[in-house]
Amino acid sequence: MNRLQQQLLFILEIDKLKSILRQTVLIDRSRRENSAEHSWHLAIMANLLSEYAAEPVDIAKVTRMVLVHDIVELDAGDTFAFDTAGLVTKKDRERQAADRIFGMLPPEQGTELRNLWEEFEAEESAEAQFANAIDRLEPCLLNANTEGGTWKQHNPSLEKVMERMKPVELYMPKVWPIVQKIIDEAVANGWVK
Amino acid sequence: MNRLQQQLLFILEIDKLKSILRQTVLIDRSRRENSAEHSWHLAIMANLLSEYAAEPVDIAKVTRMVLVHDIVELDAGDTFAFDTAGLVTKKDRERQAADRIFGMLPPEQGTELRNLWEEFEAEESAEAQFANAIDRLEPCLLNANTEGGTWKQHNPSLEKVMERMKPVELYMPKVWPIVQKIIDEAVANGWVK
Repeated sequence: MNRLQQQLLFILEIDKLKSILRQTVLIDRSRRENSAEHSWHLAIMANLLSEYAAEPVDIAKVTRMVLVHDIVELDAGDTFAFDTAGLVTKKDRERQAADRIFGMLPPEQGTELRNLWEEFEAEESAEAQFANAIDRLEPCLLNANTEGGTWKQHNPSLEKVMERMKPVELYMPKVWPIVQKIIDEAVANGWVK
Repeated sequence: MNRLQQQLLFILEIDKLKSILRQTVLIDRSRRENSAEHSWHLAIMANLLSEYAAEPVDIAKVTRMVLVHDIVELDAGDTFAFDTAGLVTKKDRERQAADRIFGMLPPEQGTELRNLWEEFEAEESAEAQFANAIDRLEPCLLNANTEGGTWKQHNPSLEKVMERMKPVELYMPKVWPIVQKIIDEAVANGWVK
């Protein structure tokens, strides 16, 4: 198989991400969000909100990072934020997925995408921290605009929600007051207990 | 309304792009593709296939361009490639959509996104030409992997398909032989007349 064929097979393979459903519901409430369109939303958000990153970020890198951050879900599925059992095995399942999926690409491209994913997961660089904050902010905005969304459905504790939203507080401090207000309203509405 | 509120309203508004359906069918044939996940797919393709661009491209710019290139469809809808009547009014409808939607953002961000969209439409810069080629290549790959997809469904003439795929021939010449082969097979299968 030549280089272009490898690249095209990978491109066909990731079409499946459009069928990986997250728990989050679209604002028009027609259905659950899939991981491909979620990644698109994050990429635009990152570009529009980079001025609020706690540290200066390479926005082109953040963009590539959020575009690929969920590709491992092709094999590992989407692990819901409040699925305690699923979270235990998440790392192993996603690492195996990364081996297979990024391994489909020519080596230097596969390594680049895998490194972006690992950097995102490690949440240590300014880019990864900002990308994680955006990844938490998006479902929070969708929940706030769908009468509680996954919060209302799963009724998590305030403690769990605060822990989940921590990256926004830490890495987008100027956006935090809006998230804090959304969470306060979620508690007042009984969506978060 | 302050700057952050404007940005967040725009971010909520574009959630609707996830419900704008294209004619193209996903490879798993479960449903039609939406414009948000399509834009995500193009962004990854652009990053992986930039080596085949006829001229050197600023890939970060191409990425931003494909991420926003369909946002006008929020108001204007997706105009199918072989819808002759729809194509006549497409430009006006999309221009009005651009005024409203990009006008929601703080001026300098709205202008940046609008310029990216206009550059994509003008198809004159190396970035826009490559982005257009990618935008044509993606549904072609999906059609080839869904037993003809929109070709089988709408049975366009070979002339129309060749015209539609022209950007790939011009701006990704090294990828063209694969597309030519796909089209030859589509004709042999009777999907393209």
